[in-house]
Amino acid sequence: MREFRVLFKPQGREVSVLQGTDIMTAAVKAGIMLAAPCGGEGVCGKCRVIVDKGKVSAEVSHAISDVDRQAGIVLACQALVESDLEITVPGESVESHECLSHDAEDFAGGVTLRSEEAFRFSPIVRKVCLELLKPAAEDSTSDLDRITAGLKEKVEGLRLSTKLANVKHLSEVLRESDYRITVTLAYKDGALEILSFEPGDTTASSFAFAFDIGTTTVAGQLIDLNKKSVLGTKIAFNKQAMYGSDVISRIIYASDPEGLERLSAAVIGNINEIIGDLASAHRINAGEACAVVTAGNMTMMHLLLKIDPSNIRKAPYVPTVSVFPVINAAEAGIGISPRGAAAFLPGVSTYIGGDIVSGVLACGMADSDNTTMLVDIGTNGEIVLGNREWMIGTAASAGPAFEGSGLACGMKAAPGAIQKVSIDKNFEVELSTIGGVPPRGICGSGYIDLLCQMLKRRIISKDGRIDRGMDSGRIRKNGANYEFIVAFAGETAIGRDIVIQDDDIENLKRSKGAIYSAIIALLNKVGKDISEVKKIYIAGGFGSYLNIENSVFIGLLPDIERSVYEFVGNSSLAGARMALMSHEAFDKAVEIHKGITYLDIGAEPDYMDEYIASLFFPHTDIGRFPSVRL
Amino acid sequence: MREFRVLFKPQGREVSVLQGTDIMTAAVKAGIMLAAPCGGEGVCGKCRVIVDKGKVSAEVSHAISDVDRQAGIVLACQALVESDLEITVPGESVESHECLSHDAEDFAGGVTLRSEEAFRFSPIVRKVCLELLKPAAEDSTSDLDRITAGLKEKVEGLRLSTKLANVKHLSEVLRESDYRITVTLAYKDGALEILSFEPGDTTASSFAFAFDIGTTTVAGQLIDLNKKSVLGTKIAFNKQAMYGSDVISRIIYASDPEGLERLSAAVIGNINEIIGDLASAHRINAGEACAVVTAGNMTMMHLLLKIDPSNIRKAPYVPTVSVFPVINAAEAGIGISPRGAAAFLPGVSTYIGGDIVSGVLACGMADSDNTTMLVDIGTNGEIVLGNREWMIGTAASAGPAFEGSGLACGMKAAPGAIQKVSIDKNFEVELSTIGGVPPRGICGSGYIDLLCQMLKRRIISKDGRIDRGMDSGRIRKNGANYEFIVAFAGETAIGRDIVIQDDDIENLKRSKGAIYSAIIALLNKVGKDISEVKKIYIAGGFGSYLNIENSVFIGLLPDIERSVYEFVGNSSLAGARMALMSHEAFDKAVEIHKGITYLDIGAEPDYMDEYIASLFFPHTDIGRFPSVRL
Repeated sequence: MREFRVLFKPQGREVSVLQGTDIMTAAVKAGIMLAAPCGGEGVCGKCRVIVDKGKVSAEVSHAISDVDRQAGIVLACQALVESDLEITVPGESVESHECLSHDAEDFAGGVTLRSEEAFRFSPIVRKVCLELLKPAAEDSTSDLDRITAGLKEKVEGLRLSTKLANVKHLSEVLRESDYRITVTLAYKDGALEILSFEPGDTTASSFAFAFDIGTTTVAGQLIDLNKKSVLGTKIAFNKQAMYGSDVISRIIYASDPEGLERLSAAVIGNINEIIGDLASAHRINAGEACAVVTAGNMTMMHLLLKIDPSNIRKAPYVPTVSVFPVINAAEAGIGISPRGAAAFLPGVSTYIGGDIVSGVLACGMADSDNTTMLVDIGTNGEIVLGNREWMIGTAASAGPAFEGSGLACGMKAAPGAIQKVSIDKNFEVELSTIGGVPPRGICGSGYIDLLCQMLKRRIISKDGRIDRGMDSGRIRKNGANYEFIVAFAGETAIGRDIVIQDDDIENLKRSKGAIYSAIIALLNKVGKDISEVKKIYIAGGFGSYLNIENSVFIGLLPDIERSVYEFVGNSSLAGARMALMSHEAFDKAVEIHKGITYLDIGAEPDYMDEYIASLFFPHTDIGRFPSVRL
Repeated sequence: MREFRVLFKPQGREVSVLQGTDIMTAAVKAGIMLAAPCGGEGVCGKCRVIVDKGKVSAEVSHAISDVDRQAGIVLACQALVESDLEITVPGESVESHECLSHDAEDFAGGVTLRSEEAFRFSPIVRKVCLELLKPAAEDSTSDLDRITAGLKEKVEGLRLSTKLANVKHLSEVLRESDYRITVTLAYKDGALEILSFEPGDTTASSFAFAFDIGTTTVAGQLIDLNKKSVLGTKIAFNKQAMYGSDVISRIIYASDPEGLERLSAAVIGNINEIIGDLASAHRINAGEACAVVTAGNMTMMHLLLKIDPSNIRKAPYVPTVSVFPVINAAEAGIGISPRGAAAFLPGVSTYIGGDIVSGVLACGMADSDNTTMLVDIGTNGEIVLGNREWMIGTAASAGPAFEGSGLACGMKAAPGAIQKVSIDKNFEVELSTIGGVPPRGICGSGYIDLLCQMLKRRIISKDGRIDRGMDSGRIRKNGANYEFIVAFAGETAIGRDIVIQDDDIENLKRSKGAIYSAIIALLNKVGKDISEVKKIYIAGGFGSYLNIENSVFIGLLPDIERSVYEFVGNSSLAGARMALMSHEAFDKAVEIHKGITYLDIGAEPDYMDEYIASLFFPHTDIGRFPSVRL
């Protein structure tokens, strides 16, 4: 088979690939991550590239218009290399790895500030400097016993253990440093494990990272354990998206051992890039960082750790592991100190992962006398209800619409995403984007505002249909769909109209209905009324903004006193940070994992009725939304 | 450089080596272990081989007589290959790997039989078969949580942990075995660690090994954990002897990292050969065995685990580690199940190693209200004195004379070793050898008898000098030495007279003096009289036999009521077995390691006087040995 050269512009990177390789694969080889929410199936049309020179072969795709095709536009996932090529990659086809916004820090940090007081500062990994007496004739105890005795004076009376590899050259380290050494200790299974011995006092460098691994985004924070503070936050898109946008397609991809390797390598790549970026931004040596604590859903954790995830998608949907062992960072390829510790928040079940347990921890729900609720709106909508006595959780099959997936102009909460929308009487649209740049698409919080505004202006009906008769230059027919133009091509960064279509609205309606009806069904299951819930924490990847009023207006959230709601942003990351800062918080998470009963809401007799009734804006039973006037 | 072929007979093995290679190295390459108590220095003369054909170069050695040299005899460690060679290896030059005697089992077993009752049977590694309920919609807990819950019903409430590598394919194991699996658990740092998951019920195969690693010999036992019994015992010579007979020369050899590797590989080779031999003798699969518990002196443990031992021989003589981590057998290259556990008895200090702690455990000394003593006569003479309240220990620089080292015809307690001697009025010698075969040399217990008989027959004086004037065909002059012929060439297996010389007697006198005076100095240190010691356990590599009466007669042991003495054989191996059979015994050993105070007897003001006074048979102060009449 012949080899061809493919040059990618504007990056200016050239790679050699075999004839018949798809351009997406060639781009990966060139280090360019193309958007591929559909997992390379050729249906989402997000990986468009322009063939400037050379020949490709590709089947005709409905995701590309004839005009575009004539302009040389192809889908990178479908077009195969048939000669040397020159390819131009449009900006919107590249996955963004930028920090979504600085506000993200506030939200990741906000929750912990309060609950942090609940747990003593006792990081899961800590450094202790020892200045030991030198051995003498009357004190010839072994080097390790000498250190153990020194440690017992400085740390609580926990059992100490170490690994063989650590002690092989201990005698050298001790003598070279004149008996002044730094011991790094990890809390592990109720004991203290010595991770490493270093000569001299290295306690000034005590850094660690907290991570939230989402199906869509990976968020990381650099923490200074001496200052007990967050130095920086970084968010990137999960590189696994190249192999499939949802967990099911990734589990299928992982059924081949090589696929599992690739998926693990992809997310480890995310983690290491974030570690590297945060380390260089704050001028620390990542190789000296001593711990990483990670929260993520069950599938993400299995893929990251290369644990067979296949049973997660086979009835009765059982994960292999829900409480993950603490490992050496090097075991997972995480780029901190090779003997640093990597810990993972435990999950409850396939549908209630470590990200949700982490959120429950961060919100202090399991320590509250009051009954509270966490609603995490991500690819699924996970809901946990309870107090210090009991907890119950479920997952609604909400789909990824509020993450911008599966919608004509949907995108993640990244720079250029429309996050706030208002529409005036004359149907003029006012919008704001993340980063204040020209719009590239619409993210979840933008869609919530948009639906609300379109309802208020009667652009859509209560069942979500765009008014075919309305006289507005923003409404038009497109195939079987009607669409409303949110931003005209000239205003955008992508040179095309940004629209919302009938199908998008249907999709969003099902999502909001699934979440609302799950909230109600969960309350019904335990015989509680919504009024008995003293606090509802709303978490999710909405960036820094979510309009609660508008969320109630479209029927996503119950119509109650607004002060009950609190938008907590990425509570999974906040919980991971708490578990990093206090091993008591980590132990609490293990308790929480045991304490949450999982409810399969789909099997509840009244759930389907509830769901059907919710497929209306705000709801079929308008009496439930007294504050909403349409 | 040229390559030559070297053929070893009677083994019939041929190897290729470079010109200038010594024959010892060529023999190792051919898998033939030659005796080398001097560590290949060319002084002990034990590695004699006969050059039948070909040319070697070697400096003239005093260890070979002119007659022998003319017969083609060379020292394998000194003779360099200068052409193709044919070499005959005499039987006595080969290290024996045979079991020393079946009686060894009795002695290794004897002590534990009694003390075993002190500890509940709770082996350090155990297998548990679980028959689990299959997951269902209402029971979708993770595979690992399911197993953990199943285990909690069967084992005590200890914390459970596992390693990442274990769980990666757990879901497969569970489903392939229809939820009937065997979990192997190890007690480790006060918690239970899951070592492995196997499909089906494999508990019928629950085997483990206990080892004593001595400087001279390596002893191993195969234990059936289901039957709670010893299936077999095997003893071999420590292959490290090739690199030096004593710990100091081995530590020097280990100062080069490659040397440390070789020494570790040598003793691991011993362990694996014994494991292999015992496994095939008892038709079990060694690869299924789940644990190895090992006791040995500090240097042996450091070398085995490749831990830098250099400070053991530098003042103030500090070992790197005294409490060794429990590791996977594979980490040390031990040939049981790769995920099996390897545990090591803790030592006190450079001079009181895990072998002694193991002996103290086996003898139940630390649980006794009575004050008792352990005297372990090996390369050093270690002595521990105490009761449940306090313990003190020391090491006498006894030298390896009672192990047969450094003596003209000394040998280890192996087949052909003279172990019992009596001499009648006409100086006729009656002797018995280990294995009942023609004699090849004299071992420790044989020397004790011999000294006693020679004293009684006045062949030697009370200061140990052979009577120059005595009229006997067995006494003759040899260089500066006089010697007594114990067996004439014709009676032996080696075709040479077996003798004891003035220098040997001087050597043995210093050894017995060192041990006796250390016993007394230790008693003086704590202000106790020997009469207050209710039991004295005598341990050591004497094979199955030690004559206490004769030991007192020569002044090796104090002259007290003989029933106070108990010969316990290899108490180190017995303790290792106990620790294997009960993790509570293992924990006890850790307690003992902390509880023994080490006394540097050489620094005691009255020790040197005590020692000098003991350089007489039985003692300068005959009043201390009222039962001895000379």
